[in-house]
Amino acid sequence: MLHFSKSEFQTRLIKTKQSMEKQGIDVLLVTDPANMNYLTGFDAWSFYVHQLLIVIAEEEEPIWVGRGIDGSAAEITTWLSSKNILPYSDDHVQSTVKHPMDFVAAILKEKGQSNKTIAAEFDAYYFTAKNYIQLTKQLPNATFVDGTSLVNWIRIIKSDQEIKYIKRAATIVTETMHKGIERINAGVRECDVVADIFHKQISGTEEFGGDYTSIVPLLPSGEKTSACHLTWTDEVYKEGDPVILELAGCHKRYHSPLARTLVIGKPTSEMEELADVAIEGIEAALDVIKPGATCEEVEMAWRKSIEKRGFEKESRIGYSTGLNYPPDWGEHTASLRPGDKTVLQPNMVFHMIPGIWMDNYGIEISETFRVTENGVEVLANVDRKLFIK
Amino acid sequence: MLHFSKSEFQTRLIKTKQSMEKQGIDVLLVTDPANMNYLTGFDAWSFYVHQLLIVIAEEEEPIWVGRGIDGSAAEITTWLSSKNILPYSDDHVQSTVKHPMDFVAAILKEKGQSNKTIAAEFDAYYFTAKNYIQLTKQLPNATFVDGTSLVNWIRIIKSDQEIKYIKRAATIVTETMHKGIERINAGVRECDVVADIFHKQISGTEEFGGDYTSIVPLLPSGEKTSACHLTWTDEVYKEGDPVILELAGCHKRYHSPLARTLVIGKPTSEMEELADVAIEGIEAALDVIKPGATCEEVEMAWRKSIEKRGFEKESRIGYSTGLNYPPDWGEHTASLRPGDKTVLQPNMVFHMIPGIWMDNYGIEISETFRVTENGVEVLANVDRKLFIK
Repeated sequence: MLHFSKSEFQTRLIKTKQSMEKQGIDVLLVTDPANMNYLTGFDAWSFYVHQLLIVIAEEEEPIWVGRGIDGSAAEITTWLSSKNILPYSDDHVQSTVKHPMDFVAAILKEKGQSNKTIAAEFDAYYFTAKNYIQLTKQLPNATFVDGTSLVNWIRIIKSDQEIKYIKRAATIVTETMHKGIERINAGVRECDVVADIFHKQISGTEEFGGDYTSIVPLLPSGEKTSACHLTWTDEVYKEGDPVILELAGCHKRYHSPLARTLVIGKPTSEMEELADVAIEGIEAALDVIKPGATCEEVEMAWRKSIEKRGFEKESRIGYSTGLNYPPDWGEHTASLRPGDKTVLQPNMVFHMIPGIWMDNYGIEISETFRVTENGVEVLANVDRKLFIK
Repeated sequence: MLHFSKSEFQTRLIKTKQSMEKQGIDVLLVTDPANMNYLTGFDAWSFYVHQLLIVIAEEEEPIWVGRGIDGSAAEITTWLSSKNILPYSDDHVQSTVKHPMDFVAAILKEKGQSNKTIAAEFDAYYFTAKNYIQLTKQLPNATFVDGTSLVNWIRIIKSDQEIKYIKRAATIVTETMHKGIERINAGVRECDVVADIFHKQISGTEEFGGDYTSIVPLLPSGEKTSACHLTWTDEVYKEGDPVILELAGCHKRYHSPLARTLVIGKPTSEMEELADVAIEGIEAALDVIKPGATCEEVEMAWRKSIEKRGFEKESRIGYSTGLNYPPDWGEHTASLRPGDKTVLQPNMVFHMIPGIWMDNYGIEISETFRVTENGVEVLANVDRKLFIK
C-alpha cells in the first residue's frame, strides 16, 4: 500500500538524520501524524491515542510505537520491518495508571539511548504536556530538546510524486468548489450544500478518489462571514447572504485548499469593492513569486496593493501546505507574513488566503500555488471573482 | 446560536468549580475543544491554533483566549461577555518568536493568579508540551497540577437536552449505516460508498441536519479488516470481501457511533461463528446494564460469554461518548474494561464496541446505549447481525 518508492522514503529519512546531526540530536520522537506518514507511510485514524516514531541516529530504521490494535495498520501501510513495529498493550489507553510514554522510555533504555540528547515535537498537536512530563521523569539522564517542525521543514520542498498527488487534489477542489457554488441558493439548507461538497471531495474523479481533508469545509454565511472558522448549520440560506467557502481537495493525504466568496442576490457596493481589492492584491502577490523571492516579499506585494485602496489586514496571508492530518492542512513552517525570510524554491506549495474581515462581513478568495523553476503555477481552476447567484 | 439554556451552562460551570475546589485548584485552563464548548458553547474549527478557557475560581465568567480572527466566533457562539473574550495578535500563530501561552501568562498575572494552584489538561490533545514549558517558565511562582478530564467527568452524565441531540445523532447513524450497507458491492469503489455515507451524515434528516463526526468513517475491507482504524481507498470491493463500517451520526457536536460488518458473497464459517460470538457477547453485556452496575461488570459479562466459545479479547470493549471534536468521539472517562469501577447512572451514554480481530480478518458489531432509570436503551436501530450482500 506504499504511495511512494522505498527510495523516496529513504531519502526523507536521510535528510531527517542530517538535520538531527546538525542540531546535535541523537533521538527524534515524531508524533505529528503527517511526519509519521512522511517517514514511513503510516496512515490510519489512530492519532487519537498516543503513537510515535522513534528515529535513532545510529539505527537504520525508525521504530513505530502505538496501540496494540493498530500494529496491523503499521504492518499494512509502512515499509518498516515487523521487528520495528512495537505496539503497547491496551491497558495503556486513556488510563490513569499506565502511560504510553513509560513504554517508549523502556524502549529507549533498552536501546541504550537513555542518556542521550532526545528531541520531541514539543508544540505538535499530539505531543501533550503529559508526554513530556512522563518522559522526563522516566529518563532523568537524557537531555530533552525541542524538535518541533524538524521534519516539517524537510517536507516543505515536494518531490514530483508529491506534486502529482497535490495536483490531483487541486482537480478535486476545482470540481468541489464549482459544485458548492452551484448548490448554494436562498431556501437551501446549509447542511445539504455541505453534504454535496463532502460527496464530491470523497468520490473524487473517475480516475482517482478523494481522501478526507484535514479541516472540514468552512462555510460561514451572512453576518457569520466575519468569523472565518465557523462550519455550517441546518438553517437555510437567505436572499442577500454572503457565503464564504473554504475547502480543500485531498488525495492520499495531500491537500490543495481553495476559498471563494459568493453573494446570493445583489452584493453591496462595499462587498464588490472588497472583492476587487482582494483580487488585485492576490494578483500583485502572485506576480512576485519565483525562486529566490522571500515569503515576506510576497506578503509585502499584497499589503502595498491593498494599502493603495485604503485597507489593511493584520494576519498572515498564507502558509506552506501539502501532506497532513486533522486538525490542520497547514505545514507549520513558512508563512507569508512580515518577518518570514524563507526563500522560495521550486516545488514549494503554499495556500495564499488573504481574507479580509470587517465587523459584520468578510471575504476570502484564495489560491494554492506551486513555485516553479522560474515563477508560479496556480493549481486550481476556478474563476477568481466574487460569485453572484 | 446557543444550543442550551444559559442556566444549563451555569450549572456546568458550578459543577466545574466545585470539582476544582475539592482538588484545591484556583485556576483551570481548559484546552479540550469539547470542554470549551461544554462550558461556553464555543464552536469553531479553530483548535488547530492554541486557544483555551481560563476558569478562575473567584471570577464569575470564564475567559476565552484564542487567535484574533477567531474572536468573532467566540462572540457569535458563546454566552460570554465581550470583555471576557481576549484574542491574541496574529504574530503568535505558529511562530517561533511569540507563543500564545505568553499571552495567557500575562492575563493570569494581571488577574493576580500568578502564585496560585493552576491546573491544565496535561494529557488533552491540544495542550502541548510547549504550552506547559512556556507557562511554567512565565509563572515560576504558580503550582501546576494535572486537570486532565476534570470537566470530562462532569460531562459523563448527560442532561435531557444533550440526550435529545444524541438521539438525533442516532437517527442519523441508523440511516447512514443502512445507506452504507446498501451501497457496498463488488465492483464499487470504496471512495464512492464513503461519499454517500458522508452525504447522509451531513444532510441528516428533513427535520434536522448533521454535523461533522469527530472520527471519519472507518471502512477497512478484505484483509485490512484486521486493522480497525484504516479509512478507505479508491480500489473496488471484491466478491468475498468482509467490510467493517464504523461510523457515527453527529448533531450539534453530539455523537452516536455504530459499527457493523458485512460480507460480499458467502461468508466463511469462521466469520459466521465470530459474528455469532460477538452478538451473543454484546447481548450478555447489555443484559447486565442498569444503574448501580459497574463498567467492569459489563465487560465481565461480555468476556464470560465469549470465553464459553473459546475466544478472548484484550482491549477495552467501550467508552463514554457524547459531545466531541476531532480526533476522538470518546470522552476519556469511564471505559468498559477490567478494573474500571465507575458506577453506571441514568443518562450516561456509552459506545460498546467489542471488536474481535484475527490475524487477517476481523469483525466489529457495536451499539451506543443510554443507561436508563432501570436498565438500558439501545439508541440506533440497525439489525444486530452479520450483513451478507
